[in-house]
Amino acid sequence: MKDFHDLADYSVAEIQALLDLAARLQHNPEPRALEGKILALLFMSPSLRTLASFQAAMSRLGGGAFVISPNMSIHGIETRPGIVMDGMAAEHIREAVPVIASYADAIGIRAFAERRNLDDDLADLEYNAMRDLVEIPLINMESAIQHPCQSLADWKTLDDIGMPKNGGRFVLSWASHPNPLPLAVPATTVKMAAMRGMDVTVLRPEGFELPDAIMQQARDLAAASGGSVRETTDRDDAMNGAQVIYAKSWSSTRHYGDKKADGDLRRQHEDWCVDEPWFANAADDCRFMHCLPVRRGIVVADRILDGPRSVVIQEAQNRMFAQMAVLHAMLA
Amino acid sequence: MKDFHDLADYSVAEIQALLDLAARLQHNPEPRALEGKILALLFMSPSLRTLASFQAAMSRLGGGAFVISPNMSIHGIETRPGIVMDGMAAEHIREAVPVIASYADAIGIRAFAERRNLDDDLADLEYNAMRDLVEIPLINMESAIQHPCQSLADWKTLDDIGMPKNGGRFVLSWASHPNPLPLAVPATTVKMAAMRGMDVTVLRPEGFELPDAIMQQARDLAAASGGSVRETTDRDDAMNGAQVIYAKSWSSTRHYGDKKADGDLRRQHEDWCVDEPWFANAADDCRFMHCLPVRRGIVVADRILDGPRSVVIQEAQNRMFAQMAVLHAMLA
Amino acid sequence: MKDFHDLADYSVAEIQALLDLAARLQHNPEPRALEGKILALLFMSPSLRTLASFQAAMSRLGGGAFVISPNMSIHGIETRPGIVMDGMAAEHIREAVPVIASYADAIGIRAFAERRNLDDDLADLEYNAMRDLVEIPLINMESAIQHPCQSLADWKTLDDIGMPKNGGRFVLSWASHPNPLPLAVPATTVKMAAMRGMDVTVLRPEGFELPDAIMQQARDLAAASGGSVRETTDRDDAMNGAQVIYAKSWSSTRHYGDKKADGDLRRQHEDWCVDEPWFANAADDCRFMHCLPVRRGIVVADRILDGPRSVVIQEAQNRMFAQMAVLHAMLA
Repeated sequence: MKDFHDLADYSVAEIQALLDLAARLQHNPEPRALEGKILALLFMSPSLRTLASFQAAMSRLGGGAFVISPNMSIHGIETRPGIVMDGMAAEHIREAVPVIASYADAIGIRAFAERRNLDDDLADLEYNAMRDLVEIPLINMESAIQHPCQSLADWKTLDDIGMPKNGGRFVLSWASHPNPLPLAVPATTVKMAAMRGMDVTVLRPEGFELPDAIMQQARDLAAASGGSVRETTDRDDAMNGAQVIYAKSWSSTRHYGDKKADGDLRRQHEDWCVDEPWFANAADDCRFMHCLPVRRGIVVADRILDGPRSVVIQEAQNRMFAQMAVLHAMLA
Repeated sequence: MKDFHDLADYSVAEIQALLDLAARLQHNPEPRALEGKILALLFMSPSLRTLASFQAAMSRLGGGAFVISPNMSIHGIETRPGIVMDGMAAEHIREAVPVIASYADAIGIRAFAERRNLDDDLADLEYNAMRDLVEIPLINMESAIQHPCQSLADWKTLDDIGMPKNGGRFVLSWASHPNPLPLAVPATTVKMAAMRGMDVTVLRPEGFELPDAIMQQARDLAAASGGSVRETTDRDDAMNGAQVIYAKSWSSTRHYGDKKADGDLRRQHEDWCVDEPWFANAADDCRFMHCLPVRRGIVVADRILDGPRSVVIQEAQNRMFAQMAVLHAMLA
Repeated sequence: MKDFHDLADYSVAEIQALLDLAARLQHNPEPRALEGKILALLFMSPSLRTLASFQAAMSRLGGGAFVISPNMSIHGIETRPGIVMDGMAAEHIREAVPVIASYADAIGIRAFAERRNLDDDLADLEYNAMRDLVEIPLINMESAIQHPCQSLADWKTLDDIGMPKNGGRFVLSWASHPNPLPLAVPATTVKMAAMRGMDVTVLRPEGFELPDAIMQQARDLAAASGGSVRETTDRDDAMNGAQVIYAKSWSSTRHYGDKKADGDLRRQHEDWCVDEPWFANAADDCRFMHCLPVRRGIVVADRILDGPRSVVIQEAQNRMFAQMAVLHAMLA
């Protein structure tokens, strides 16, 4: 494995093999598997789970990791191509990325969506500019439109909670939030559930449709796995028989890059806070998933997060086991 | 060992066993004892010694560590219970702590006193809110009213400088400082010296009395060990025959949470800077202790810190050895 | 090896032995050579390459490292001697350095030039104040006037690109930059090339002469190795037959510590951006070196950095291998 970027780059069998490896490493530690190996972690955007879980993953396998963020260089790192660097930034990614990679056996890079232009973010412009500079094994730690480590962990979580290997009723729901968040998690999640052959419903208000290209890719993946993908604004319809609701807020795609218009629209939907009444039509043991961090009382009610439906801590822990498998496949 | 929180939770024999282990690891390294094991370090407050010594301790035993502080998450970590998270913080400790712990075999947490309400700080409200969320072995890296790692290291330092296993004359002295500092170190230090059966004098100006609950606990511990605890404002009386002076500034308990009144009172005592004349009545080889960081020329004169009385560097180094013992006892 | 401070402290044979060790560790990893050993990294100034490469170096040899920077302490670390600490800083280097060192088997310290007074920086006042406090093996990670790790890596890079062991034509050129940068890299570079017996030309505008003491030391080193050192403002003359140009901006020595006068002077030389026309008289395969970070379009044109002349990434990677040799020589 050289470039862990999009879960859809892999077959279901390949993903299952990775997760078998994850489970093996979870239950039978290999504390010297990556002895003398180094993982570079480049964070152009903030992190808590990813920062912690990758360092822990590498240490558990006997390797080492180091962390770089732009504020560690002098006055930050420039990302724009062809620029005359007479401003604050003293270093360009064209040097920083190859240098950091030169110290490591594998590198993880995080660069959130800029959220100015939807086409740029769908094309993953900033991340791909760095990706083009890397010749060693590379892990996408969340780019504008991808978050494959999250989806691999969520796939494992669905297995762990007893969802069938294929099928099941999955709702991806938009949720309220004060800020216009990136599309990476919903885009990667709808594809993940589709690849599992689930019947996927994307529940969101008007103006928050996922981009056509993402929806079409998800439908194609679902078709190949025997599942389906649809979207609706009707909560009762969406939740009918649901076995999993995956909540996440994201930017308005209608007003992408327009904070004012996005804010005006999202303020009309502050009632999109997942709470027990949402589950009236759902399967009795319908689970609640979220990638974290999550705003309590805004995205979801405390009683859901603190109750038996929630598997958010398991999802987060599975980040580590999933990433151990990716690192082992790359470097062992 | 599951929850290293208060030195007084342990018997003198248990502490001695821990310190025997510390000395063994100091002189006979075990660089693979914690192979594949991970320590999470959560700093809600800043750190230098604790940050460095825990990472070094874990590495010396062959394990790994990762560090998390609130600024690594997006806009910080919320600690208030039941709050609707519509402000800056994007994550709550109710998720952050279990997630961080899920990557680790043990976790250390630091959360300084808020210094608004004395009863809240004596009850260690913020730290205990996090402690309740942890199911793996937990180390208190300084909370509002506890600092057991400091006291364990100081106990070892007293042994190292040849103090008797039981007894000796110990002065804990308030010192000048521009800011109202937490009570954790004086509270934990008076108990530590009492447990050693020392004759302990707390020397402080009026208005800086240690809380009754702490003093009473210290007196009870002293009684069990054959020592004593008293307090005074009289420097000559306190220092008479003293074998150790442990200096530390702390907040006015009379004006706790009132920065203005505290400042007015502490400015009257800017002469509480430990210097050679303090030692006129003391034992010839009376030692100077401080937990660091220390303000030179404010808390203590340079000639004391730089002279033969000072054992502050040994105290700091013993943090590492003491913590290696705690980690070994928890995880090996 | 106890104190890696100035490349000129070592004979050419000793440097060659270190680089033989570097090459051996590069091609035959020793992932347990420093098992249980700890490197402390104290950064009083920012870092990217040094931060990453030292952590990677130590991990590749099976040891551990921890990083300390002033913002990790409460309100920073005081460096001035004899001061009454009633300001922001809560800790003095006189405690911080010995404490940090007490956790480690070796320590690296970085402290950039203050750039207020040239004599102070040539005397390396701030760095030497810390150096005096260290009793364990110490590595200079860049001080006001030294950067031995950079020079050791550059020496290896010159070997790697096929420069003869002795001799060759080397140009150290000042370059444009918006800010008055330290003298450490040019000072250490001119000495490194002189020690290799190269014919060294320092190319710089009037007002940017390197200090006499540095030039004299370089001339003495060159004489011992059969090389030469001269300086000029004439680009065509300097580049005639050059096999290597090492670009770097630095402060005006005429106006040292005077930002306004320095700025007025450097703005007259914004055309000192290395580009292809500079190479008209040079050897066909003349290489471009720079220690990084580098401002594109200011110090050097993109087409040089992105073209076959540039060896800047190799230089950066050789930092790791050179430092592995230093650490191995100190600790294995």
